Amino acid sequence: MHVAILAHEKFPGRAKTALGVLRYADYEAVAVVDRENDGRRVNDYVPDVQDAPIVAGMDDLDADAVDTLLIGIAPIGGGFDESWREDVRTALEYGCDVVSGLHYFLSEDEEFVRLAEENGCELQDVRKPHDDLTVAEGVAGDIDAEVILTVGTDCSVGKMTVSMELVRDAREAGLDAAVVPTGQTGIMIEGWGNPVDRVVSDFTAGAVEEMLVELGDEHDYLFVEGQGSIVHPAYSAVTCGILHGSMPDKLVLCHEAGREAIHGYESFSLPSIPTYVDLYENLSAPVSEAEVVAGALNTAGLEDDVAARDAVDAYAETLGAPATDVIRFETDDIIEALR
Amino acid sequence: MHVAILAHEKFPGRAKTALGVLRYADYEAVAVVDRENDGRRVNDYVPDVQDAPIVAGMDDLDADAVDTLLIGIAPIGGGFDESWREDVRTALEYGCDVVSGLHYFLSEDEEFVRLAEENGCELQDVRKPHDDLTVAEGVAGDIDAEVILTVGTDCSVGKMTVSMELVRDAREAGLDAAVVPTGQTGIMIEGWGNPVDRVVSDFTAGAVEEMLVELGDEHDYLFVEGQGSIVHPAYSAVTCGILHGSMPDKLVLCHEAGREAIHGYESFSLPSIPTYVDLYENLSAPVSEAEVVAGALNTAGLEDDVAARDAVDAYAETLGAPATDVIRFETDDIIEALR
Repeated sequence: MHVAILAHEKFPGRAKTALGVLRYADYEAVAVVDRENDGRRVNDYVPDVQDAPIVAGMDDLDADAVDTLLIGIAPIGGGFDESWREDVRTALEYGCDVVSGLHYFLSEDEEFVRLAEENGCELQDVRKPHDDLTVAEGVAGDIDAEVILTVGTDCSVGKMTVSMELVRDAREAGLDAAVVPTGQTGIMIEGWGNPVDRVVSDFTAGAVEEMLVELGDEHDYLFVEGQGSIVHPAYSAVTCGILHGSMPDKLVLCHEAGREAIHGYESFSLPSIPTYVDLYENLSAPVSEAEVVAGALNTAGLEDDVAARDAVDAYAETLGAPATDVIRFETDDIIEALR
Repeated sequence: MHVAILAHEKFPGRAKTALGVLRYADYEAVAVVDRENDGRRVNDYVPDVQDAPIVAGMDDLDADAVDTLLIGIAPIGGGFDESWREDVRTALEYGCDVVSGLHYFLSEDEEFVRLAEENGCELQDVRKPHDDLTVAEGVAGDIDAEVILTVGTDCSVGKMTVSMELVRDAREAGLDAAVVPTGQTGIMIEGWGNPVDRVVSDFTAGAVEEMLVELGDEHDYLFVEGQGSIVHPAYSAVTCGILHGSMPDKLVLCHEAGREAIHGYESFSLPSIPTYVDLYENLSAPVSEAEVVAGALNTAGLEDDVAARDAVDAYAETLGAPATDVIRFETDDIIEALR
């Protein structure tokens, strides 16, 4: 796949999906489309991911050079920004498939549907759950693979990144590991998955279970991408459904250094780390005994490595388990704890 | 409203919605429609609810006598049984509205839509969430009313019944109380509400919060109908979303005497009652401090009142809080604990 990644006015800081794809996906990135960064390159901003030129619009690319356009940003609310329409139109006229994680479904947009038909393209809305989802049967625990779930103290502390990094490092350590993606970015990177936050609430656990059952015993280690936080005022339902639907064996607790309140819900303080450990373990236990065996601390907000190392060490001590920043430091101790 | 309640082959034992409506709704029940119990009366089977004749089909009723048909049963899977089509057809030809809590939406059935249009009737699918739902803002705690949530050790232990009985008894005790319905039966009884188990999982808490904010300070006590159980392998997401979305002040723990495993998921044992108390209180605390202040024990499976009283007393002692069977015994102590 040769993909262009749309990220107008948001690259790199507010283009989580674009960055995730550049960092982890097997696709060849032909270009990032961002009219504010025209002429630069990805590596000018982010050194440790796949490089690609940044262009102002799809019409700066040759039709032959690209076969897929990914929408790599998601505005608050998940709407479609009309300033992107020309790029999507051009992509379809080039014969490209268009992949989107927006709440606004491209496959229900009249013009895009018509253009896709005319040009033999596919409109793929990864946030649209498929129709066969149903309630969990409580059987995810029956598969042989070791199931590892990333859980968090809040949204946007790095659960997706931690899942991807740990799978990559587990594979490098010789383990047969795979990701079970539950959110739009993970689904785009892996090319499959159920958007667990968009399914009918009764089917939340079932949507996760279905993926685990489908993978079955294909791998020895399955890393389930967690969502939200078990004490999030808005999103805890999704977190709880993933916890019970995946019936994990082990948990990795993800946290951001210095975060003290729920992002966007600042009147709600984060409980202590040991409280999170107890909550996740005690809530899981009646469905699946699972222990927090490792911690992942996002230290992106700390400038120097010494401070970051100190923060990671303190986090490990609080947890009573090995911890790291998966982007900044080694993951050997964590991989060992997950074996 | 003059309603007929469809309950073919399921009345009374497997017609939870029909019984709930007969017991709690303000509607006048004109008849129960059950071809297997034709000629009997409701009170032949269930003494303490609104009485009505049982007829074999809608065409046994006069068109003038009835203005609404309620679907009072829900088969596993929530499908529409084609053997009911003739009754729904007749109802619409009589000019009746039809209210359904099935997963199969009558408002998407071609024939019913046509008949409803021809006869000026409404097809009301109470399990179809409205389009404006969104994520919770974490503001349910801001309303002045005391919010009481019924939580359970499992599905079908009586949370809806407990909510309805406690509101009725609270009103009789002079309190200004109302129900916040979250499931199909509660919604049919109250005539409003969000079907929390059918909303997009990200909006679970938001769907509850919206109802509480809408009621605001209209009442002093709001009894939120809980769903599922926080350790249910399939439905815990809904339970968790209601817990955090309602931001309750007090919890009533509902349980069925003698139940030892999750219904339909028998390999999962119920944890101990004190474990449930800790789980609900500890999970709620970071969002809303809430205490289990009372227990409701469903003793329908126990034949004599002495055994039932013993079971209730033992449950109260385990809880360290007053308990009762809301159908069988007085609720005075519980109402007192909720004040």
